[in-house]
Amino acid sequence: MVRVGIINVTGYMGAEAARLLARHPELDLVSVTGRSAAGKPLGQVFPHLAALGLTIEEELGEVDAVVSALPHGASAGAVLPYIERGLPVLDLSVDFRLRRAEEYEALHGVHPAPGLLSEAVYGLVELHREELAGAKLAGNPGCHAAAAILALAPAVKAGLIEPDVIVDSKSGISGAGRTLGLTYHFSEANESVAAYALGGHFQLPEMTQELGALWEAPPPSITFVPHLVPMSRGILATCYASLRRDADLGGDADGRLRELYADFYAASPFVRVAPEPPSTKQALGSNDCLLHPSIDQRTRRLVVVSCLDNLMKGGAGQGVQCLNVMLGLPETAGLDSLALYP
Amino acid sequence: MVRVGIINVTGYMGAEAARLLARHPELDLVSVTGRSAAGKPLGQVFPHLAALGLTIEEELGEVDAVVSALPHGASAGAVLPYIERGLPVLDLSVDFRLRRAEEYEALHGVHPAPGLLSEAVYGLVELHREELAGAKLAGNPGCHAAAAILALAPAVKAGLIEPDVIVDSKSGISGAGRTLGLTYHFSEANESVAAYALGGHFQLPEMTQELGALWEAPPPSITFVPHLVPMSRGILATCYASLRRDADLGGDADGRLRELYADFYAASPFVRVAPEPPSTKQALGSNDCLLHPSIDQRTRRLVVVSCLDNLMKGGAGQGVQCLNVMLGLPETAGLDSLALYP
Amino acid sequence: MVRVGIINVTGYMGAEAARLLARHPELDLVSVTGRSAAGKPLGQVFPHLAALGLTIEEELGEVDAVVSALPHGASAGAVLPYIERGLPVLDLSVDFRLRRAEEYEALHGVHPAPGLLSEAVYGLVELHREELAGAKLAGNPGCHAAAAILALAPAVKAGLIEPDVIVDSKSGISGAGRTLGLTYHFSEANESVAAYALGGHFQLPEMTQELGALWEAPPPSITFVPHLVPMSRGILATCYASLRRDADLGGDADGRLRELYADFYAASPFVRVAPEPPSTKQALGSNDCLLHPSIDQRTRRLVVVSCLDNLMKGGAGQGVQCLNVMLGLPETAGLDSLALYP
Amino acid sequence: MVRVGIINVTGYMGAEAARLLARHPELDLVSVTGRSAAGKPLGQVFPHLAALGLTIEEELGEVDAVVSALPHGASAGAVLPYIERGLPVLDLSVDFRLRRAEEYEALHGVHPAPGLLSEAVYGLVELHREELAGAKLAGNPGCHAAAAILALAPAVKAGLIEPDVIVDSKSGISGAGRTLGLTYHFSEANESVAAYALGGHFQLPEMTQELGALWEAPPPSITFVPHLVPMSRGILATCYASLRRDADLGGDADGRLRELYADFYAASPFVRVAPEPPSTKQALGSNDCLLHPSIDQRTRRLVVVSCLDNLMKGGAGQGVQCLNVMLGLPETAGLDSLALYP
Repeated sequence: MVRVGIINVTGYMGAEAARLLARHPELDLVSVTGRSAAGKPLGQVFPHLAALGLTIEEELGEVDAVVSALPHGASAGAVLPYIERGLPVLDLSVDFRLRRAEEYEALHGVHPAPGLLSEAVYGLVELHREELAGAKLAGNPGCHAAAAILALAPAVKAGLIEPDVIVDSKSGISGAGRTLGLTYHFSEANESVAAYALGGHFQLPEMTQELGALWEAPPPSITFVPHLVPMSRGILATCYASLRRDADLGGDADGRLRELYADFYAASPFVRVAPEPPSTKQALGSNDCLLHPSIDQRTRRLVVVSCLDNLMKGGAGQGVQCLNVMLGLPETAGLDSLALYP
Repeated sequence: MVRVGIINVTGYMGAEAARLLARHPELDLVSVTGRSAAGKPLGQVFPHLAALGLTIEEELGEVDAVVSALPHGASAGAVLPYIERGLPVLDLSVDFRLRRAEEYEALHGVHPAPGLLSEAVYGLVELHREELAGAKLAGNPGCHAAAAILALAPAVKAGLIEPDVIVDSKSGISGAGRTLGLTYHFSEANESVAAYALGGHFQLPEMTQELGALWEAPPPSITFVPHLVPMSRGILATCYASLRRDADLGGDADGRLRELYADFYAASPFVRVAPEPPSTKQALGSNDCLLHPSIDQRTRRLVVVSCLDNLMKGGAGQGVQCLNVMLGLPETAGLDSLALYP
Repeated sequence: MVRVGIINVTGYMGAEAARLLARHPELDLVSVTGRSAAGKPLGQVFPHLAALGLTIEEELGEVDAVVSALPHGASAGAVLPYIERGLPVLDLSVDFRLRRAEEYEALHGVHPAPGLLSEAVYGLVELHREELAGAKLAGNPGCHAAAAILALAPAVKAGLIEPDVIVDSKSGISGAGRTLGLTYHFSEANESVAAYALGGHFQLPEMTQELGALWEAPPPSITFVPHLVPMSRGILATCYASLRRDADLGGDADGRLRELYADFYAASPFVRVAPEPPSTKQALGSNDCLLHPSIDQRTRRLVVVSCLDNLMKGGAGQGVQCLNVMLGLPETAGLDSLALYP
Repeated sequence: MVRVGIINVTGYMGAEAARLLARHPELDLVSVTGRSAAGKPLGQVFPHLAALGLTIEEELGEVDAVVSALPHGASAGAVLPYIERGLPVLDLSVDFRLRRAEEYEALHGVHPAPGLLSEAVYGLVELHREELAGAKLAGNPGCHAAAAILALAPAVKAGLIEPDVIVDSKSGISGAGRTLGLTYHFSEANESVAAYALGGHFQLPEMTQELGALWEAPPPSITFVPHLVPMSRGILATCYASLRRDADLGGDADGRLRELYADFYAASPFVRVAPEPPSTKQALGSNDCLLHPSIDQRTRRLVVVSCLDNLMKGGAGQGVQCLNVMLGLPETAGLDSLALYP
């Protein structure tokens, strides 16, 4: 058993990582930290994790691998010592997602170890499986980014679409974390939908970086608008792009498109091509990403609906999948839960 | 007092029309019909309408104006006798929304009075106020269409955007009506988001017709994808379009854009330009439509967030506004409710 | 028009009072205050109230009557100057609900004007209509208390039940106010039900005081457990009491019980006896309280289901009703909204 | 591996049983039936079960044990052949819950095999663990009944309370099943709470039977009122009973009470005594039942809050636990999922 520790278990992402590691057949969650809650039994902060019998600590104990669930900006500095000691580190924040330091620093300020950015691997297993095998440092994708990149990668790779993309993403409210805010106050968020971050969301550069790597120049031009919808978990990203003039899927375009997608993800156990438009509920609590690509023939646009659980395939579940690959374990270990329906 | 009757009061749209007419200062709801429920007190079907003291009838009694809340296809035939008698008729179905019979019939089958289609007025007051004054027949807009058309009309009229539009609309579940269906079963719809009608939604032709009338040729190419979100009421449509190459809003583009929108709707009491992205809750139970236009400078796209209550400005509220104008009453009569918050 | 001011408009109760007064035919909302938000346009804090055109002030301007929506403990002191000037004051907090200072102080600490407690009238119009007419000071009932007292008063008055009562109340989350707290964070409160205040809730003494006044000695023994349910508005209180041994409702006990209730509330326009168990949705946004009394013959228990909107009949709506009576206006003025359904 | 079949997999209870059996280490789900859906891939009806690769059949194939998720009344007849062949049968309906045929038939009509009623074991493992070991036929408890019986059994057994009990239970809407009904239509059920079955609910006799067996005569007098709350899963039952005159828990009554409960369930891995009032979310997707007993000293009443997931510990999870015991497997096999939070 590999001993794993979670830094900052006290948010939703950290708690979800703990829930998964607690039932992982080959990873052993032995230590968890949390700034304000240090000294408390984990089960006092999260009753559903009481059975783990852990106490929240100031610092990680003896571990073989590290998961950091610290907020953006705080995480990189905190994991540096572990990186230096050669421990495998999975970072759930944005701190190791971008390859170019300028891009990171434009949004998040000075990075404590910009040199590591080019070494870290973007933790989306479906696109970086080989690089991740044996890697020591991975930056886990953002939830919207995971949904959008998985939705568009096959079409980009196949040269089907213009680099001119709109991602309209709808997220459950746990995506905003456990920190209080009027926007997330029940009576405000309930029975309401709203767009946010119209001026630019921090997960857009990830989409551009990852999809851009699959495209020929010029870099893709992506408009991304996230929305809050009144549910706890789930992301549904509807992605739009113009078909290239020379793209020709023949007679049964939708059928051929779904085949193309299924082929692309043939070796990826968590991505499923759905024959009907999926609902986020079909992914609740599982590590699945469901994709439904189709063509709007009238306007010659590709429309891909992508859905996942933002704390699972859009967060800690994806992270455990990534850690499995980094550590040479079966990719699906500890991640076989079926969706909780209804 | 003008005596008004509602045909088919037993759905959500009919009930909402009854709720509004019951408190209207110049319209008197005197008769309501409903196929299966005929003979029952209205308050037995809808306890919140018990105070009206009406009984559901087979046929309308003596009225001066008619509101039809019958389903698409059934409505046109049912209102014909009233049209022939010269009564003002407001139709809430799709049956009198489209000007060209071919377009109607391609989606909905034979129209019983295709000749009336060119006479009917599209009931969106903000665009057809003058034609509606004194008109005898109006087809009330669809809920998604109302949100999208109001969102884009000012930009189209000002020549800002290419005729290349994406409308990503999120709707509360009352939009699907009161008829049972597994998709609308609580445990299925709750805690879930899904796209639907990817193959084409019946409200798309309305958008094309109304926006097309404001555009120079060629007709606009619109991709419209509606979504169901787990709330009872509300629509938020996020509308995307490429700015024309020659569009130039100068320095404070967002500010100038909001001014342009505010000017366009200066005489329209129910449309408000919001300085911050609005949430549907801000329109709940009111007849308001809130618009938040902005420019994504990086990709030179217009993004307009539009929200309204689908049963009010997207349905019966808009219908009462339209009837007010048809009958020469103040446009806001009976529609002064502020949003129910939170 | 009577000029009214609201102290502390920035919570849900204050905002709801403003929403109602804004459309009141005989009261004119001219001034609103709010500690932290002073100087801001009301529409910036509450977009749905933008049309009022008010600015939040430090202190009330010139008014003829005062509504206080300050929190418990802070309200009494703040309204004293207005009481001393002889202005009618409606207090929405707990500060003037209890007649005995000891009881208030046991829960809430020193009262700044304990002598006023015996002068203030408990603002539940249905039980105190005559005392309220012309009164200068009223303490508006708590939301749970209003639901429970209205549910049980007819049975107590008729001598039907033992003074041995259980009130199991389920509340929407707006009842907890606009102040942030982990319990009311969307992702925590959504998809969950919980009991709270098992050690004793501050609205219990109101129930005991008001029901006790209708009972012969000894004072009633009430167990009251409130619950949070995942919705914005609404209270449903299920009230249980043992029938007195000599209580005899004859053959159609449920029918006779409903008659007894209907008679009790014959002069009360906002209380309706429902033939079927009502749902809170039937009262949403209206000032109605729906009561469904029944007898569990097997155990000889009275079970009364009572529902209302906690911000309306359980809060600001009840408050406006009370103010109407205090000022000699029609009891229903400004309160004729039908429930917003669905 | 024991081969298990599910009769009528097409409702929520059947689907949940399939979800659990699909990941069970010692049970192998090999066959599922469903009346209307026979011939369809299971994954077409339930996308989250697609990975099982099963097709819905008319009749069960070769199995070693049977789970029936048929509706009340239909189930007994359908499982008779398997009972006769000596196969272990777990029935999820009400058909084998009651020991006395008269009681069953008063509510549900003629029983096809009344003689079996006295042989079947009530499947609540915590109370019948020994009888269930090796048993061939068990009737799985109802969801409300499971919550209430677990809540009260320790207090009854300890002689603490009078046989005079009120169970006020709040249920998520999946408890009503997958069959459509206006009450469960999203727009009707959402943002609303309602009581139902005030005239008597079919799970009341289970409570009386099971608690009565722990009591000295006379039989307990229970008033049970279930409520629908707007969430998908979860039951919270608040149970009230008067303390016996001679009941004395001494100084720290609540502490001693929790000890007494903890002792009672010391050998029961799924029942946890919670130091704070629990919320249903803490049990979501797990097989846990959380109990919070307390004393209302003022009125000398016991108040126990009990919560569980109605499809897990209140349904299929409890059923798998029961089957484990019947088959001599570890009680917790296949049931180790932690709650899905938030």
